[in-house]
Amino acid sequence: MSKLLILGAGGHGKVVADAAMASGKWSDIAFLDNNNDLNEVLGFPVLGRFESYQYHLQENWTVFVAIGNNSARMYWLDKLELEGYNIATIIHPYSTISGFSSLGKGSVALAGVVVNANSSIGRGCIVNTSSTVDHDCIISEGVHISPGVNISGTVTVKEDSWLGVGAKVNNNITIGKNVIVAAGAVIIKDVPDNVMVAGIPSTIKKYFGDEQ
Amino acid sequence: MSKLLILGAGGHGKVVADAAMASGKWSDIAFLDNNNDLNEVLGFPVLGRFESYQYHLQENWTVFVAIGNNSARMYWLDKLELEGYNIATIIHPYSTISGFSSLGKGSVALAGVVVNANSSIGRGCIVNTSSTVDHDCIISEGVHISPGVNISGTVTVKEDSWLGVGAKVNNNITIGKNVIVAAGAVIIKDVPDNVMVAGIPSTIKKYFGDEQ
Amino acid sequence: MSKLLILGAGGHGKVVADAAMASGKWSDIAFLDNNNDLNEVLGFPVLGRFESYQYHLQENWTVFVAIGNNSARMYWLDKLELEGYNIATIIHPYSTISGFSSLGKGSVALAGVVVNANSSIGRGCIVNTSSTVDHDCIISEGVHISPGVNISGTVTVKEDSWLGVGAKVNNNITIGKNVIVAAGAVIIKDVPDNVMVAGIPSTIKKYFGDEQ
Repeated sequence: MSKLLILGAGGHGKVVADAAMASGKWSDIAFLDNNNDLNEVLGFPVLGRFESYQYHLQENWTVFVAIGNNSARMYWLDKLELEGYNIATIIHPYSTISGFSSLGKGSVALAGVVVNANSSIGRGCIVNTSSTVDHDCIISEGVHISPGVNISGTVTVKEDSWLGVGAKVNNNITIGKNVIVAAGAVIIKDVPDNVMVAGIPSTIKKYFGDEQ
Repeated sequence: MSKLLILGAGGHGKVVADAAMASGKWSDIAFLDNNNDLNEVLGFPVLGRFESYQYHLQENWTVFVAIGNNSARMYWLDKLELEGYNIATIIHPYSTISGFSSLGKGSVALAGVVVNANSSIGRGCIVNTSSTVDHDCIISEGVHISPGVNISGTVTVKEDSWLGVGAKVNNNITIGKNVIVAAGAVIIKDVPDNVMVAGIPSTIKKYFGDEQ
Repeated sequence: MSKLLILGAGGHGKVVADAAMASGKWSDIAFLDNNNDLNEVLGFPVLGRFESYQYHLQENWTVFVAIGNNSARMYWLDKLELEGYNIATIIHPYSTISGFSSLGKGSVALAGVVVNANSSIGRGCIVNTSSTVDHDCIISEGVHISPGVNISGTVTVKEDSWLGVGAKVNNNITIGKNVIVAAGAVIIKDVPDNVMVAGIPSTIKKYFGDEQ
C-alpha cells in the first residue's frame, strides 16, 4: 500500500487522515504544514512546510491537499496535479457514494456522507461530515459542503462555493461560483455568483468583487 | 431473485432503483414512465407508460411506485395493491430501521436513514436521504419525509403530508394530514390538517381546501 | 455476556435498549422505572422503581442511566458510579466514533452518529440520533446533543447543556454550562452559562439563575 502525504495538519487535516486510515487504502500517513511548531499530529509526523513537498514526496506516495480554504486548496491541488504527482481521492468507509455517481480527484467524502444516483462532484471538493448530495446534482470543483448540509435533487453548485454547516438546498436550484452560504441557511431560489447569502429563506447579504 | 418494475423514472425513481440494487434483493430493474422520450435510465430500460403496467408486470415481478407527489403515488399504489400485484418495500443497506419498528408496503427508506424503536411508518411513504424518525412515532400512509428531516420522539404525522428538506420536529408533536412543511422549518407546536407551515419556529402560511 | 439494567423505560430508554441490543455487547436487558404501570417495554421486563436498584443489580450486570433530563441523569450516574457499580457506555453499531476520540462512561452514541478525530465527550452524555461532533471538540459531562445536531470543529460545550433537535454550531465556538439551545438554532458566536438561545443566528432569549 502506498503512503499518503497530507498538506495541512489542522482540524481538517486530522479528519482527512482519520478517514484515509479508516478506508484501509493507505499503510501510513505524514503531514506537511506551515506551522513550524507542529512535529506530530494524531501520531503521524509533520515533515516540513508545504514548500518542501518535492523533497518529501516519494515516487510511490499519493498526496492530498487538506486545506479548508477553497482557493488555497485549489492552488495546491492544481500545482501538484500539473507536476504529475498521484493525487488521492478519499472516501470514509462509513458513507455511501452511489455507483452511478462520481467524486473528483483530490476530493474527500467524510463520515456519514450520502451521494445519491447520477451526481457528479468535481475536483478538490470537501463533502464534509454527514452532508448529503441527492440525485442529478452537479457540484463543480473546489466546493466545500460543510457538515450536515443537505442538497436536494438536480442542484448545481459552481466553482469554489462554500455551503456552511447545516445549510439546506431545495430541488432544481443553481448556486453560482464564489458563493458563501451562511450556516443554517435554506436556499429556495437560485443564487448568483460572488455573493454571500443567509437566512430562511436565504437572501443576499453581501456582494463580492469578481476577483474575490 | 424477482425483478422490480418501478413506476417513475425521474430523479426519485433513480434513487429508488439505486437503493433497490444496493439492497441486493432484486436481480434486475425496469421502469415505466409517462415521458415518451425516455428509453433508458441508469442503464435500466423504460418499457412504456404507466398505463402499460398490466402488459409488463410478469407474475414473479414486484412493483414499486416512485412518484414524488403524494396523491399520485398513493393513487397508483392503491390501484396496484387492489389488483393483487406484489408491492415492494425498499430499504437502502446504508440505513438502520429498528427491529422494534415497521415500514409499510410500498415505502422506501433511502441511504442514511435512521428509524428508532417502536415507530410505525405507513404504506407508500418516502423516508428520504439521511432523514430520521425517532422512537414512538406514528407516520401515516402517503407521507414524504425529505432529506435531512429530523423527527423527534412521539410524533404523529397524518396522511399525505410532506416535510420539506431539513425540517425539524420537536418531541410530542402532531402534524395533520395534507400538510406541507417548508424547507428548513422547525415545528414546536401541533399543526392542523390542510395547511402550509414555514419558519423558525414555524407558523401557518397558507390554508388549503379539504379537497386538496 | 453481561446483562444490562437501564434506569428509565421511557422513549429514551427504548432507544438505548435498542442500541445496546444492536451493539451485541449484552445478552439481556431489564429496566427500572418510576412508572408503576409499566411491566414490560420492548419485550424487556421493568423490574421496579429506580430506588430498587440495589436489590436488582447483580454482580455481573452493568447499568446505564437513560433519563433525558440532564441533572436527573447525572444525579443517578454519580450515585451509581460512587457506589462502585459497572457503568455501561453504549455505541450503536450504525455510527462511527473516531479511534482518536473518546466517549465517557455512562454516555451513549445512537444510530447515525459521527464523532470525528481528536474530540472528547464526557461522562453521561447523550449523543442522539444522527448528530455529529467534529474534530477537536470538548463536550463536557451531562450534555445532551439532540437528533440531527451538527457541531463543527474546535467547539467546547460545558456541563449539563442541551442542544435541541437540528441545532447547528459553527467552528471555534464555546457554549457555557446549563445552556438550552432551542430546536433549529444556529450558533455563530459564544454562548455564556445559564441561558436559553434560539433563532438564526441564535440570540439569548432567557437567563437562568445559577441554581438552575
